[in-house]
Amino acid sequence: METTATAIKIEKIKTSKISQVDFDNLAFGSVFTDHMLVCDYKNGAWQTPEIMPYQAISLEPSAKIFHYGQSIFEGMKAYKDDHGDAFLFRPSDNHRRLNISANRMCIPEIPKAYFMDGLKELINLDKDWIPQKDGSSLYIRPFIFASGKGFHASPADEYKFLICLAPSGAYFSGKVKVLIEETYSRSANGGVGFAKTGGNYAGQFFPTQLAVKEGYNQVIWTDDNTHENIEEAGAMNIFIRINDTLITAPTSDRILDGITRKSILEIAQAEGIRTEVRKITVPEVVEAAKNGSLKEMFGAGTAAVVSPIAAFGYRGTDYDLPELTDSYASRFKKIITDIQYNRSEDPFGWRQKV
Amino acid sequence: METTATAIKIEKIKTSKISQVDFDNLAFGSVFTDHMLVCDYKNGAWQTPEIMPYQAISLEPSAKIFHYGQSIFEGMKAYKDDHGDAFLFRPSDNHRRLNISANRMCIPEIPKAYFMDGLKELINLDKDWIPQKDGSSLYIRPFIFASGKGFHASPADEYKFLICLAPSGAYFSGKVKVLIEETYSRSANGGVGFAKTGGNYAGQFFPTQLAVKEGYNQVIWTDDNTHENIEEAGAMNIFIRINDTLITAPTSDRILDGITRKSILEIAQAEGIRTEVRKITVPEVVEAAKNGSLKEMFGAGTAAVVSPIAAFGYRGTDYDLPELTDSYASRFKKIITDIQYNRSEDPFGWRQKV
Repeated sequence: METTATAIKIEKIKTSKISQVDFDNLAFGSVFTDHMLVCDYKNGAWQTPEIMPYQAISLEPSAKIFHYGQSIFEGMKAYKDDHGDAFLFRPSDNHRRLNISANRMCIPEIPKAYFMDGLKELINLDKDWIPQKDGSSLYIRPFIFASGKGFHASPADEYKFLICLAPSGAYFSGKVKVLIEETYSRSANGGVGFAKTGGNYAGQFFPTQLAVKEGYNQVIWTDDNTHENIEEAGAMNIFIRINDTLITAPTSDRILDGITRKSILEIAQAEGIRTEVRKITVPEVVEAAKNGSLKEMFGAGTAAVVSPIAAFGYRGTDYDLPELTDSYASRFKKIITDIQYNRSEDPFGWRQKV
Repeated sequence: METTATAIKIEKIKTSKISQVDFDNLAFGSVFTDHMLVCDYKNGAWQTPEIMPYQAISLEPSAKIFHYGQSIFEGMKAYKDDHGDAFLFRPSDNHRRLNISANRMCIPEIPKAYFMDGLKELINLDKDWIPQKDGSSLYIRPFIFASGKGFHASPADEYKFLICLAPSGAYFSGKVKVLIEETYSRSANGGVGFAKTGGNYAGQFFPTQLAVKEGYNQVIWTDDNTHENIEEAGAMNIFIRINDTLITAPTSDRILDGITRKSILEIAQAEGIRTEVRKITVPEVVEAAKNGSLKEMFGAGTAAVVSPIAAFGYRGTDYDLPELTDSYASRFKKIITDIQYNRSEDPFGWRQKV
């Protein structure tokens, strides 16, 4: 899969749209840059990637994406430092995970060169779109979907790989209140929970809306069998700090192998913070909340970075988390964003200049 | 939801493509008729449905269907009798189920009049496309997907409802050999298994391909926790006949409430066939295969109608089903297709003239 991308075809936009964008008031993922990358899979091979002006896609009504949900994606960000240089964070890990998702969803793997060269070429072209305001970044969305035709429920014979860029503000504003879910589930043992595929997200919307009606921002998913084990929050992995120990669930075929999650585990080790990657149950967390040993809960993901949880709801009771002056969450967030924005050394080798 | 469809806008095709179609050699769902129905949801309401020439759809790359899998569909068929009259089979049940899927996937419900009137208008326009060869029919695909924009993982604000028609031959050719799956799973407790949503299908492709490599046509899914209970086959519900008793699993939030499935249960009652709707375990079926009491297994679904199973594989052993001269499967198939093609009375009130 180390195929070198043949020279990427580039068609530049005639007039940039950048002057129309209010970079001080960016929502998340709702404004798109001048260009996008498109690469078609047909006749059994990925074709030459093309960079072109951001534009609509034309598809047959029988394209399998509309019917059988063959789609995968990644979430990444590009950051700009004070000198105007652009950086990516662990991009090879996104490529690796995209192909893990591809295999589970019967989508052909994308060669690394197509992904990395295409990504860098595209970001260089739209470098002026990387916001420099703190908390803002250029959100990067690589995705693949089934464009092949037909109503037979089987894998498509044609796919489209795209990369789109969206200058974005914060995913969550402020602290997050979560509900521990015991009725609905996100994924099955032997299912596709570990893959970044569309269906995993659509299935969460209804239970999340029910939680939002009750005043929560997100759902924390538990396993579908016992609803005892804390798994993930759908758009974030979950960390729990009991006394000074940081706990998170092991990844499995139900849980996404988050890049921010594993970065936090590595930072914690370097910082001498005791970590436990193990099953953590709801009763354990409730008990810790009651006896005061529960110090922190936070989500970790590319979109939300490190997202402190202010309270969790469980069986009709809300449990507030304490307000700490020097939280693990804020330490991790500072270390990660300092690396991302080239404000610090990068002892882990995660930062990659575009 | 009994809104009357405002007059459907109709734009007819200039020249029909029908003369290009070989009706004697139709695959399943790969040829499409002259027209399609399109109805947009925006500004909080479904707009006027339009019938137009079958054509490509244009979508923004950030349309949520590509990222978050919000999609639902139905499978139906239209049949033609010897007089050239066209019929549908229990179409209201498809409308009802589409809205059940819609609710679970946070998609706005489609009003019944939009569905039924649009369907009938479209079929009347493309009536000449209904094949009359035995075993062939006009496959109907109503579907809704998220066309609204943005990378935020939340329900879209715009949707498209389409109906496309595909003159089709049989879904399976010949008898089917199935593998009882114990590693992978189709759906979780509290998940979306009962909804006809794209992600439920994409997740099956990989395990099904593994089974196909071993010589099977389809997988029979078991529950994700114990892998003991027989659930469904992904594109079909499953019936098992032990001695003269017909057994099928109860519907649940993991299993699709199949229209062919419930038709068979009603026919069985009318025919005096003893039925049991209950959990049925793999060990029970294996034991019945060994002691000779297992008489039949068959799948039931709109696409495949009634699909006899010739053998099932389990833990490395294949168990053959006997060849019966007067099987339940063939009786049900005859009764159902005689009703569908207007070759018999319709004591159940299932047939609807278009």
